[in-house]
Amino acid sequence: MENIGKRAKAASRVLAVAGTEIKNKALLSIAEALRQSKDIILSENMKDVRKARLNGMSESMVDRLALNADRVEAMANGVAAVAGMDDPVGRVLDGSVRPNGLKIEKVTVPLGVIAIIYEARPNVTSDAASLCLKAGNSVILRGGKEAITSNTCIASIMRSAIERVGLPADCIQLVEDTSREGANQLMRMNDYVDVLIPRGGAGLIRACVENSTVPVIETGTGNCHVYVDKDADPKMALDIIINAKTSRPSVCNACESLLFHKDFPEESLIEICKALRAKSVQIRADERICALFAGCVAADESDWGTEYLDYIISAKTVDSTKEAVDHIARYGTGHSECIVTNNYFTANEFISNVDAAAVYVNASTRFTDGGEFGFGAEIGISTQKLHARGPLGLKNLTSEKYIVKGTGQIR
Amino acid sequence: MENIGKRAKAASRVLAVAGTEIKNKALLSIAEALRQSKDIILSENMKDVRKARLNGMSESMVDRLALNADRVEAMANGVAAVAGMDDPVGRVLDGSVRPNGLKIEKVTVPLGVIAIIYEARPNVTSDAASLCLKAGNSVILRGGKEAITSNTCIASIMRSAIERVGLPADCIQLVEDTSREGANQLMRMNDYVDVLIPRGGAGLIRACVENSTVPVIETGTGNCHVYVDKDADPKMALDIIINAKTSRPSVCNACESLLFHKDFPEESLIEICKALRAKSVQIRADERICALFAGCVAADESDWGTEYLDYIISAKTVDSTKEAVDHIARYGTGHSECIVTNNYFTANEFISNVDAAAVYVNASTRFTDGGEFGFGAEIGISTQKLHARGPLGLKNLTSEKYIVKGTGQIR
Repeated sequence: MENIGKRAKAASRVLAVAGTEIKNKALLSIAEALRQSKDIILSENMKDVRKARLNGMSESMVDRLALNADRVEAMANGVAAVAGMDDPVGRVLDGSVRPNGLKIEKVTVPLGVIAIIYEARPNVTSDAASLCLKAGNSVILRGGKEAITSNTCIASIMRSAIERVGLPADCIQLVEDTSREGANQLMRMNDYVDVLIPRGGAGLIRACVENSTVPVIETGTGNCHVYVDKDADPKMALDIIINAKTSRPSVCNACESLLFHKDFPEESLIEICKALRAKSVQIRADERICALFAGCVAADESDWGTEYLDYIISAKTVDSTKEAVDHIARYGTGHSECIVTNNYFTANEFISNVDAAAVYVNASTRFTDGGEFGFGAEIGISTQKLHARGPLGLKNLTSEKYIVKGTGQIR
Repeated sequence: MENIGKRAKAASRVLAVAGTEIKNKALLSIAEALRQSKDIILSENMKDVRKARLNGMSESMVDRLALNADRVEAMANGVAAVAGMDDPVGRVLDGSVRPNGLKIEKVTVPLGVIAIIYEARPNVTSDAASLCLKAGNSVILRGGKEAITSNTCIASIMRSAIERVGLPADCIQLVEDTSREGANQLMRMNDYVDVLIPRGGAGLIRACVENSTVPVIETGTGNCHVYVDKDADPKMALDIIINAKTSRPSVCNACESLLFHKDFPEESLIEICKALRAKSVQIRADERICALFAGCVAADESDWGTEYLDYIISAKTVDSTKEAVDHIARYGTGHSECIVTNNYFTANEFISNVDAAAVYVNASTRFTDGGEFGFGAEIGISTQKLHARGPLGLKNLTSEKYIVKGTGQIR
């Protein structure tokens, strides 16, 4: 493992000063190679899929693991799209001339070596590698054991592809050791790894935060709320809730919990509950809502803090916007929080007081996404406050340095 | 300890939405209170000093611990100066209107709760608290046990002062438990602490990186190099080296190691060595430099990686700028690195290839400092790549959030 780190570091020094043109060539070379190697990728992936089924993996998990011709094409297109994005390295962020004549510039530079620990989706292998490469970073990929055959194949194709255009193959490395000890070792290689980004479920992310001495960017967990204010437009509230809950329940920006102001019209609340039930959503509600709508089940305390990622939603009555904000502060994960209201002051109260990566007024939480925000591809949604918050785009895969030009100044 | 965390979190929610005016009032109230309480601060500090001397603390360490009327005045002035700085909260960093009409704004918000673990200097108590407060953050201060009586006194004065203007006293808390277990507990309170900033020696910083599950901003260690290129102006090289090494050897931006291009004129190299010796600097040099100047002692491998923080410097010959850059990549700590050269291309080669918080051309490394960079007071020099690099000013004590305003958009 240490050897992988050393090689990543060495490659990162070459990649850090590589120009935009060669990085784009490398990305297009990867895209081309993925397309040309479609058959071998699919046959290697089939081995993983077969093994997974033998091991009794659920079909929904197998679906995340399995590739097909369209998915490989989508992977290639994703890599090619990164070539079309602006190079995030070398931007001048700030600058000044000091009274003593020193010229100070703050410019963006690559982070160096990024380790990505992820789970069963083989497309992350090419997605993450291409974003890291464009931002001038070496990447150490450590995917789940379920996808190891697919990942090994994809990584090897990518390595050859970038070598062909003159970049070190070690800009992209895959860790073949998928043991927990291997992951723990990677998490503590501070001499070689600059940043660790876990991509996956809450358990994986917790393990990284607990065990890593390398700085971590936490991604993912989203216990997202929609608060329906007394001054909400009932039709808008209904549309937003149905979209935020049911358009894709398994993702982190899906809504998990509803808060209703006590003065929001009861008949509208019932309409919303009906619409959710019509979409097969189980509603776990407080006493008042259960009394209003018989199709609910009683919520208990643990429901307020649960990210279901499923056709389940919790629902609670609050007396005021302040109570809604306090509830979100207590149970939210700082991902995406929404208020539906027509009231200017209530909207602003919510915006100011809710501390989350994204705070919405009158729009679905499902928009928290790099593409939807206009950043292009992303590497996850950061829910931590350090470095980057919200969708992690190319710009967030850089650090900065100060360049100070003098004429002999001393202090 | 958990109670401290809970109270800090609660106070941070009030402080996060406090306006600039009340925060400035609080800072001026602290400054005023420190001035008025000078006598009690000095008498409490005397208890720490007496105990330290009884315990055999070295006089240079006692000097860091001891306060006097001027130092208390300087603390008060420092706090008042923070009141005069721009509020870093609420700046709009970016924004766009998406094709679907969503209005997205990225604005700065406080980090939340910042824990500072520091060593023997009681002035850090007021410096750190005032910067955190201005940036809207609650602070948990955990100073060294040597200064506990002084720190308790200063913290209590600050707490009363902010309470008088209407802010919660718990915006500033001091941990009275100065045990290692207490510190370790603080480092793992992810539910209440958003960021941990250690201020002190390499051992403290390593302990925080090793043990903390809370995100850490690493500060401090500086194995800073001055590389004297063959095209360097000899007089400029001499002035910069003497300044970078001897103006304040105990600080992190002091120069610890010299690299000389083999074609830099020997007589100029000898002049530099003479000047260093005249300032009582021990020179630990490679064979060639030892042969040129008898006043050197032979360096061994460990010297290249040592931050002396003393009147000692290492010196080595390199064959090329590339070798200098490689040496810095291997032994440097990514703090401040300098080249002295008149050559445009060599300067640019050094700037592009050296990865450090601050890269200097023809100026002393001693300028890496919040005040010198024009940021005002700072909370340390970050040597990590995540979040912030270089002098940590007020702006670096903030996070960001996306505010998304819609008219009912769904995805």
